[in-house]
Order: sequence, then structure tokens, then C-alpha cells
Amino acid sequence: MVPPIKTAIVGASGYSGEELVRLLLRHPQVELTAVTSRQYAGQTLAQIFPKYAHDPRCRSLRFSEPKAELLAKAAQVVFLALPHGVAAEFAGPLLDAGCKVIDLSADFRLKSPAVYKEFYGHEHPAPALLQKAVYGLPELYRSEIKQAALIASPGCYPTSILLPILPLLKAGLIKSNGMIADSLSGVSGAGRKVEPEFLFAECNESMRPYGIPKHRHLSEIEEQLSLAAGKAVVLQFSPHLIPVNRGILTTLYLAPEKHFASESEMAALQGQIAQCYQKAYGNEPFVRILEDKALPDTKNVTGTNMIEIAWRLDARTGRLIVMSAIDNIIKGASGQAVQSMNILCGFPETTGLL
Amino acid sequence: MVPPIKTAIVGASGYSGEELVRLLLRHPQVELTAVTSRQYAGQTLAQIFPKYAHDPRCRSLRFSEPKAELLAKAAQVVFLALPHGVAAEFAGPLLDAGCKVIDLSADFRLKSPAVYKEFYGHEHPAPALLQKAVYGLPELYRSEIKQAALIASPGCYPTSILLPILPLLKAGLIKSNGMIADSLSGVSGAGRKVEPEFLFAECNESMRPYGIPKHRHLSEIEEQLSLAAGKAVVLQFSPHLIPVNRGILTTLYLAPEKHFASESEMAALQGQIAQCYQKAYGNEPFVRILEDKALPDTKNVTGTNMIEIAWRLDARTGRLIVMSAIDNIIKGASGQAVQSMNILCGFPETTGLL
Amino acid sequence: MVPPIKTAIVGASGYSGEELVRLLLRHPQVELTAVTSRQYAGQTLAQIFPKYAHDPRCRSLRFSEPKAELLAKAAQVVFLALPHGVAAEFAGPLLDAGCKVIDLSADFRLKSPAVYKEFYGHEHPAPALLQKAVYGLPELYRSEIKQAALIASPGCYPTSILLPILPLLKAGLIKSNGMIADSLSGVSGAGRKVEPEFLFAECNESMRPYGIPKHRHLSEIEEQLSLAAGKAVVLQFSPHLIPVNRGILTTLYLAPEKHFASESEMAALQGQIAQCYQKAYGNEPFVRILEDKALPDTKNVTGTNMIEIAWRLDARTGRLIVMSAIDNIIKGASGQAVQSMNILCGFPETTGLL
Amino acid sequence: MVPPIKTAIVGASGYSGEELVRLLLRHPQVELTAVTSRQYAGQTLAQIFPKYAHDPRCRSLRFSEPKAELLAKAAQVVFLALPHGVAAEFAGPLLDAGCKVIDLSADFRLKSPAVYKEFYGHEHPAPALLQKAVYGLPELYRSEIKQAALIASPGCYPTSILLPILPLLKAGLIKSNGMIADSLSGVSGAGRKVEPEFLFAECNESMRPYGIPKHRHLSEIEEQLSLAAGKAVVLQFSPHLIPVNRGILTTLYLAPEKHFASESEMAALQGQIAQCYQKAYGNEPFVRILEDKALPDTKNVTGTNMIEIAWRLDARTGRLIVMSAIDNIIKGASGQAVQSMNILCGFPETTGLL
Repeated sequence: MVPPIKTAIVGASGYSGEELVRLLLRHPQVELTAVTSRQYAGQTLAQIFPKYAHDPRCRSLRFSEPKAELLAKAAQVVFLALPHGVAAEFAGPLLDAGCKVIDLSADFRLKSPAVYKEFYGHEHPAPALLQKAVYGLPELYRSEIKQAALIASPGCYPTSILLPILPLLKAGLIKSNGMIADSLSGVSGAGRKVEPEFLFAECNESMRPYGIPKHRHLSEIEEQLSLAAGKAVVLQFSPHLIPVNRGILTTLYLAPEKHFASESEMAALQGQIAQCYQKAYGNEPFVRILEDKALPDTKNVTGTNMIEIAWRLDARTGRLIVMSAIDNIIKGASGQAVQSMNILCGFPETTGLL
Repeated sequence: MVPPIKTAIVGASGYSGEELVRLLLRHPQVELTAVTSRQYAGQTLAQIFPKYAHDPRCRSLRFSEPKAELLAKAAQVVFLALPHGVAAEFAGPLLDAGCKVIDLSADFRLKSPAVYKEFYGHEHPAPALLQKAVYGLPELYRSEIKQAALIASPGCYPTSILLPILPLLKAGLIKSNGMIADSLSGVSGAGRKVEPEFLFAECNESMRPYGIPKHRHLSEIEEQLSLAAGKAVVLQFSPHLIPVNRGILTTLYLAPEKHFASESEMAALQGQIAQCYQKAYGNEPFVRILEDKALPDTKNVTGTNMIEIAWRLDARTGRLIVMSAIDNIIKGASGQAVQSMNILCGFPETTGLL
Repeated sequence: MVPPIKTAIVGASGYSGEELVRLLLRHPQVELTAVTSRQYAGQTLAQIFPKYAHDPRCRSLRFSEPKAELLAKAAQVVFLALPHGVAAEFAGPLLDAGCKVIDLSADFRLKSPAVYKEFYGHEHPAPALLQKAVYGLPELYRSEIKQAALIASPGCYPTSILLPILPLLKAGLIKSNGMIADSLSGVSGAGRKVEPEFLFAECNESMRPYGIPKHRHLSEIEEQLSLAAGKAVVLQFSPHLIPVNRGILTTLYLAPEKHFASESEMAALQGQIAQCYQKAYGNEPFVRILEDKALPDTKNVTGTNMIEIAWRLDARTGRLIVMSAIDNIIKGASGQAVQSMNILCGFPETTGLL
Repeated sequence: MVPPIKTAIVGASGYSGEELVRLLLRHPQVELTAVTSRQYAGQTLAQIFPKYAHDPRCRSLRFSEPKAELLAKAAQVVFLALPHGVAAEFAGPLLDAGCKVIDLSADFRLKSPAVYKEFYGHEHPAPALLQKAVYGLPELYRSEIKQAALIASPGCYPTSILLPILPLLKAGLIKSNGMIADSLSGVSGAGRKVEPEFLFAECNESMRPYGIPKHRHLSEIEEQLSLAAGKAVVLQFSPHLIPVNRGILTTLYLAPEKHFASESEMAALQGQIAQCYQKAYGNEPFVRILEDKALPDTKNVTGTNMIEIAWRLDARTGRLIVMSAIDNIIKGASGQAVQSMNILCGFPETTGLL
């Protein structure tokens, strides 16, 4: 029997870190050897996450101060669940020490330090690593992930937007300009940030847009869309905060390349879209293209690593509407990171995720 | 002192009816003389709506069977809070008997019986009345409402979409084609319909689109937009169901007529939009154009007859994003109907609504 | 016409302060002349509370630094919506300057500085004022409130517990020992405190007890119960945090003085309890004793100053179960404070509260 | 390798049935061979439960009409997730055909047909089977479950009440009379019943008691308490409906047999209680006795088969307060049923449940 892969989580006390703990503990082929948290150093996982307290490993494993050299000794694969700007400090030393690094922050998702600075407001802390990093969207970059030392796991909004658009764009079925993504996110998307606008009584019975019109996630979405389109793509993106714990629902407004004025044109285009998604995702374990009248509902994906996708052609407007739903913390963060780890380590891709 | 106007509500047991009861009871210049409900006939308002039970009038006023002749004797102004198709049966006899009728259903919102049939699936029950009806959006049709005998109070989604768009469209600031309305509604928007998809455990922790791409409300929205534009307008409209009791949040994607590539062009266009809204709504008591960085939030309008509107020009995409928030049951239904009644009866327009 | 009474709110930026603003602005016989907030000094009410922004007074009235001398000039009645320990600092100077003070904190609810210290953990900051203060529960202390200069408005839990118990206790219908109060509170009860346990994602889909077994509110509850019973009363009190914005639901477990083993004894006791409540609350505008099978529901009182009360005798256990529901911010705080102000100022008690 | 045990679910379309589907599909030692539903007969699991649609077994397995003879051929263990009164019809034929039956309804939880009739309002449909049935609370009846042919899985409220009380009662640490259980339940506890009081807008922002003072679950709770106490026990039980999807939180008011006026008496009693729970549950995989200051929170158990228990002695009142939290659908229904199946089939008890 193969010995388990040793893994560590840096910054394990946020929502993504907490979910990574759960996923790695139930994963049959890895061992969780270290978790770090400045705030909780010295305390056991069980003390901080009472819901995992039945697991004896959570009663023995303690949070430690984050130190790259110790992490490098403790683990072969290190997950960084840190704020952007901070993650980059750890990546370099860990890579130098021979670890594989899966970063859940935004630090390595872009190729250009200039775009990073434009969207994140400060110089990139480790620009030399940008070219090494692979964008950890397994459905798109599976073979690159397999070879990578540094994986930049995508943001939650980007995952919900890119997976539905990319196959259509690559197949030339839709125009690359004029696309709109209208997204709804549960409040855990804000992380465990203790700010007044995320208090229960401020979010409950509230629906509100924010970050309009230039949210940070646009940078990585547009980079990936541009790569797929072979030219610069600008996206309209509107995020909204919704009183649920988990989930992102995205509604995309796209323009097919072909007109479909007649019924036969419409039927033909429907066939092409269906075929495009079937080809792209027919064998993907975590993508569910909905059939018949079904539309996505976040409650059908929360707690899972799935993305649900449905689409409608609208003959009245000439548009293609595509809708998607994911769990922002799982497929939008920790689940996808574990999916990348499975690829990287040669495990079956669904291990520990079904 | 002027005697109060006598009012009645037909179909008072749904959410809109319940809110009308509240608004009419606190209105200083009207008397609520009759409420009807087939289901609750014989019971007092206090028995069915325990939250109003402290009002002695609710302990004496009883639901009755809906009969046009009795209603016509009891009231000068009759509100119809009935399903579409049913409301039209009552409007004719009540108008013939000299009542003013304010209908909250969709029955008289359209001018064309053919469009009604296309969207509602059955022949219009009283096509002759369609030309008599005034669309009860006070900010737009104040003078017509003043003279009307039959007022068709707008739907909730249409209110949230038309108020932000109409001034821009009339001023020629935006293109009339290609508009998109992405809307989020609280669950009370479905009425008190006892269907499995509206159970608590099916809605809570759920976000989902529905009625894509051809929701019924499109018919009245497009008719009003076409009237304002002076030509046929087709709208993309995507409603979503969100786990809050009250509220509609709409995000509109619009294309300005003018390009605004340079900063000075952008500043000029911003000035024109601000001026357009100021001119249209500067004196409107129920329209709040947000300033500075503020964005709409349904929690700031629920329980009120207000609409909040904010807008952003996006130089990256060339689009104008307009966002609005209302209480679907008040500004989106019963409050707006009372606002129309105030105009109709010559009361100050805010009476009983602040 | 009588000039309006001038009022001020110290600490107006919390939930109770925000609700006081709303209530005082709509009150026909008072004027709100000053609002203070260290954090927001210089900003208008409209900027901090966007939902009141339609009111022109909110666009002109600005938060100021809290200074007793300026407040004393600006207002005849001053509401203190401050944390305990801080309120007491303002009360003395304001009273000396001739203001009437209505304090929503816990600072003046107890007669004994020693009990204050036991429950609040520090010396009472103004013990001399304790004897002057009147406990502002209008249904109990109406005549004292009329004469008071300093009113200590009750806590939310105490209101929900005392109103149902006191008449029974005074009438000798229940035993004064062994009483249990099990209470559920919405999250606004924690105030606008920015602490991790009140984040949306920590409260939503959560139900949890806290403060077991010795919550601070016990001190004022037991003092009032002891006064009513004429002897020292100890209460079991268990508060729970529930994911709603507003509301307190309390279930009380009481022991009737008389046995009611037979049906006739039970009927007799039922008659006595009904009569007791009828006598105590039959003419109270804000107390609703539920009839027939109805049980309290917080959604029937939120947004109002009402308390709903229902009771059941259980022949199987020999107990009397009494249940109550209030809005924690209105009848449990700001509404009750305005009710006291109405009494104090000689206005009809329901003015501005229906 | 041992072939998997064949299992079937009768009435698989409710919330308990849906959860059983999930648990049995991920269980490594069983095969789900049949699911029945009158309403959905002919449709696949994937069509009715879209969230399971990624599992190929859900795309092939179809709901069938419930027929005992077919079920008996298809499965060795049959779960009945049916309303009370209906379950009993299936149990007899299935037992006769040699199946093991795990019933999630109330039909076989009581020993006395008379008590059944008193609480459920109709004659017991299969009284002869009552003596054969074992009450499926594994922590209490593990050895009986191992030998049983018919297991009556406990109700959700009873589980949350019995597990905390039974060890104390058996150890003689608390009085058997005068106990009170105050419980809060999420709305899924009402099942998928399509009734107005369970609509989202009726439950959200609502807290309310119901079924006071004689809820049906009292019958099985009191029977089990009486068995443990060796004499008839009467319990006060107050259930409340709370706007969360999942979870039961119970607060128990108990009277220790011994007084604990002095600190040393209190310390001694605390030691006895701690030891009692340690002895009863120290090795139980699904019982978590909380330590230090921790109190139960339903969000720490939802999605799991765990029960959290904490307790406090109150020297002021002389009472012992015990609090528990479970997921009403898992430990309160389907998870516990699978736990019983594991015992029955000789699997490790946690199989498929961690």
C-alpha cells in the first residue's frame, strides 16, 4: 500500500481553510500533518471547529504559527488559504523547498504583474512566480495541473462564469465582446471578515449589488476569456450579496455568432450548443448540464463540488442565456483545490470529493 | 370636515390584500367598508390577520363573499387584489355602478387583447375595458390617473424596471434595443400560493432563476417601453427567486446613445444622466436617487413605498448599469395602488404612505 | 396649537437608536432636535440610515459629539441609547439641567448597586440616582412614569417575561418559586456589535443557547418579580439566539397555586386566569391576549409595539404554560421608551406608536 | 468479498427518504435496489432529486409503486419512510417474507395500542407487531437492535430529549417527575407537507410554539423515560418552529436528586454527572459531550449523525440544565436508521455515516 501524501494548510481558520480541513480529513489518500493560524496557534482543530470534534485527529492536531521551513518538512503538498498579498510570501520558500503549492488566493491567477497591480492596488509580491503558476481550473487545464509545482486555484465567481462560457467561446459559437455576467453570492463569500456589513441583521432580508462595475475577479476572468478567444475580452460583471450561507448563481447574457431568426436556424443552433457542452463536459465528473426544463438552483450543489449549467436561446432577443450554480466554498474554492491536488498526485480525480 | 372616502378590497386574503388592509386602515381620509374572500367569508379581519387584531375595526369588519352589487353599494373606490382573469369579471359591473376601480392584477395593464392572450394563455375576459384603463404608475401617468375610472396598477417587476429606464429612454440618452433586466424577488412575490417550490425548506438556502426567457411581466414592460421609445422595444428579462420575504432588486444593462471613451465625454454623459433623473424624479416623494458610492439595498426600502435607484457608467464596457430596489408588495403592489387612489381622490399623494 | 416637545437621542447609531429616530420622526407631537454619535459626528441621519433619507429632516439633522450641556439646551426629553456604564455618565448632568431622561440601558433598572455590580461586573457609576429612577414598564408603573424625571426603560427579555407573569403573581394564582423562562431572540438583540459570532454565516442556519444559567437580565427580572411577590424570587432563565432579525419569543413554565385535577377545577382555574389577564390588560392598547387556539408568533408583532400572550393549562403536568412574543427593538426597547415618553408628556399613550 | 446487502426505501420522496437515498448510495456495504413513491413512479431518482444526478445509479434507478411482494424480492432490508398509519400496512407482509424492516414512522415505537390510539387518534393498524418491534435508539438498545426483525426508529424530538436524559435517570441522579423539555425545530421537521403555514414567507422571520401542551412525540418519550425510571413519567414538552432548514435544539430543565447548596456539594455533583455521561457515552461515536464553556449549536451537527450535549448546574435555582443539538433528518431520522442497519447487519456502526 502506498503511504499517504502529507498535506498542510496555511491559514486554516477561514471558511476555505475550514472546508479544506474537512475535505483532507475524509480523503483516503492524504494525511493532514499541519494547519497554521496566527490567531489560534496552540489550539486543536477540535477547539476551533467544534463540528469536526468527533474526529480523533482533530483533537490532536494543533494550529501552529505559519513558518515555511517547518511546513516544508511537514508536508509534500501545501494549500495556502490566505489573503492575497500574503500568500505570495509563502509560495516561494515552499517551492524552493520542493513542496507543491496550491494557492487559493488571487496571488498567482494572473500572468501580468501590471494587471495585478491595477486590480489589487499594490505591486505583485513575487512576480517571478507568475509564469510558473498554472490556473487551477481542472476542466480546462488538467494536463498543465498534472505537471505543475504551483497551482493558482480560481476564484469562486470566475469558476461560475468561466466553466459555462469557455467551451462556447472556444467553439466560436458566441461573440467574445459584449458578454455580461450577473452573479449572486452567499455571504460566506466574504470570508470570516468581521465587518459591520456582514453582520446577520445587515445581510438577512437584504439583497444588494456591490463592487459595480469593476470587481477584482474581473482580472482573472478576462484573462482566461481572452486566452480562449485569442483576443482581448472585456466583460461586464455585477456581483450581488444574497442572504444564504453558501452558493453562487450566475446568469450570463451572451450573443451567438449566428442569427437564429427561423425555427430551423434555432433548432440547428440548439443542437450545436448542446453538442459543444456534451463534448466539453460529457465526461466531466463535476459538471452537470441540466436537461429539459430544469434550471440551476444553488441548493442542489451546496455541499458538493458540482457545477450545474443550463441554457436557453431567446428568439425574441437573439441572445443565449446561460445559468450556473456552484458552492462558492467547494467548487469555488476548497473542493476545486482538492480536485487539482488529485490530478497532481495521480489520484482518481473524484477521490474524497463525492 | 370632509367625510372619508369609502373603500373596499376584493380578494383581501393574499399578501397584496393584507397589505392594502394595513394601508387603508391607517389612511386618515378613507374608510375600509368591505373586504371579500371566498375562503374566509364570515370571519373577521382580526381572525385571519392576527397582527392587525389590536385595531377595533379589524375585530368588527368581516370578510364577505365577493358580490359586485354589494361592493358597489359599500364603496366608492374598490381595489381588486385577485388573480388575473378573475379581476376582469368584477371591473365591468363595478364601473357600471359608478365605482372607481383600482386593479392590482394584470388584467388591464395591456392595451392589446392579442398580447394578453399571448402572455396569459387565454382570451381577455373584458377587452372593451382595455382602452379605458390607465396604467397606474403615478410618476409617469399622474394626470391620467387623476381622471381615470379604471386604474391598472403595475406589476412588481415592471415597477422596478420601468421607473429607472423610462426617463433615460424618453430623454434619448439610451438605446431602445438590447436592454437587459436581471431581477431578484423575495418569495412573497409568488403570493400565498401553496405549492411545494415555495415551502420554506425549498426556498431557504436556495437561489434560482425561473420563467427564463419569457416571463409574463414582459408584456406590460415592453408595452410601456415601446410607448416611451416611440417604437417596438424588446427586453431581455431574467427573474430569480431569493430567500427573503420582501423586495425586488433589479440590475439593468443599458447602452448609452453616445460613446464616452474620453474622460470628458464620460463626465458630460454623467452630467446628462444625473440631470435627467433630477428632472424626472427630483420632486417625486417616493423616488430616491442614491448619491456618491451608495448602491440600492432592499432592506432600505422594505416596509415603504420608496424606490431606490443608483447608476454607474462603465468606461471599460461602454455600458450604463442602473440598479433599483423596491418592496414588491408596497411600491410593487399595494402602496402604489394607494398612491394612485390618493391622486384619484385629490388627497396629497403621500397620505398614509409615509 | 401646543409647540412640540424637543427630544434628543444620545447614541443614535445602534439598532435601538435607529428605531428611536424613526419613531420620533413620525411622532406628531415631538421634534427631534439632536442625535449624537461619536463615530458618525458630522454626518447627516440620511447618510447613516439611508432608509430614512426621503425625510428632509434626515437630510439636515447631523450627528454631533455627545455633550450633556449642549443636549440640555437642545432638548426637553433625552433618550439614552448607550451601553450600560456609559449611560449613567450622561443622566446626572442632564437631570441637573432640568431634562427628563429616558434611559434604554441597564444602568437604572435596579434599585441595588450591589446587585448591579454582581451582574454587570463593575461599580455602579451613579448610585445616588438609582432611587430616583422609575422602571419604565407602562402597563405596571404608569402613574410613577407620569411623575418621573428618570425612566429606566426595561430590557427586551424582561419585557417579554414580566408582562405575562406579573398579573398572575400579583393575583396569587401562581407560585413565586420554581418559575422558568425559556426565551428566543433575534440577532438584532445583540446590537450592532461587530463580533464574529454575529456574522451572517455564523448565525444563519444556527440555533444556540448562550448566557446559561446567569444572564444579566435576570437581575431586573428577579427584582420586579420579587416586588410583585412580596418576597425574593429566583428565576430560571435560558436565552437562545435564533436566525431572525427581530423578535423575542418566551415560553414560561409556571406552577398554579391550586391543583386542577378534575375537569371542574381546571375550568375554574381557566376562568380565573382569563379574568386576571382581562382585568390587567383588557384596556391595554399594546397587550394582545390571544383567544381560542391561537399561539404567539413573532411575525405578528415585529414592527409594532404589541406583546402577544397566550396560555395553556396542562392537566397532565399540573403546569401553566404562558407564551409571549414581542419585537425586541420596539416593545423591547424603543417603542416602549416612546410609550413612556407619551405618558410623561401627557400625550395619548398610543401617539406615534400605531 | 462479501456481496452488498440489498436495501429498499418505501416512500422515498420525503425529506427522510431523500436523505436515506443519499446515505445508502454512499454506504460501501449496501446496494439500493428499490425506491418507491406513488407520486413519482416511473421517474428516476435523478429527475426528482437533481442534487444526486451526478451519480449514475440515480440516473438508472426509478421510483416504483410500493408493493410489498416486489420489495421483498428486491431487498433484504427495507426502510419505511411513510406517514404513521401507512407504514404498518407494509411491515407485516415484509416481515412475513423474511425482510428486516426499519420503520421511520411512529407506528411501532410504542408498546401499547391504547397509548397509540390516544396520541394518534386511530386504532393501531397492526397491534400484534408492537411487541416484536425494537426501539431503534442504538446508544440504548444496541444489543436488541442486533437481533431485531422490526426496528422502530425514534422520532427527532425524542432522540434529542432521550439521549441527554436517559443516563442521568438510570443513574438515579435526577428526579423522574417534573422534567421539562423545550425544543426548537427547523422547518424540514414538518416534512414536505404542502400547507400554508410552512410556506417560506410564513416561516421566515417567524418564531412560534405549536402543539402545546400535548404533542404526539410525548407518547414515545414518556414510554422510554418510564422504562428507564421504573415508574410512570410525565414530561412537559414544548416544541417551537424556527426558520432554519435543519436541526433540533433542546433545552432540558431537570431536578437533581441531591441538593448542592455548598460549593463542595456542587463540585461532587458535577463530578457525578460528568462521570455518568462519560460512562454512558465516552465510547459512543455519535455523541459529543461538550467541554469547558462550549454550548450546543445546531450548525455544528447539521449534515452529520452527531448529537451535541452540554450541561450546567445552577446553584441559584437548584436545577440541572441540559442542552442538546441534532440534525433532525440525520440523527433524528435517516442517519439513526442507517446506524441501526449497521448494527443489524454486523457492519462497523459508523460505516457510511462519517
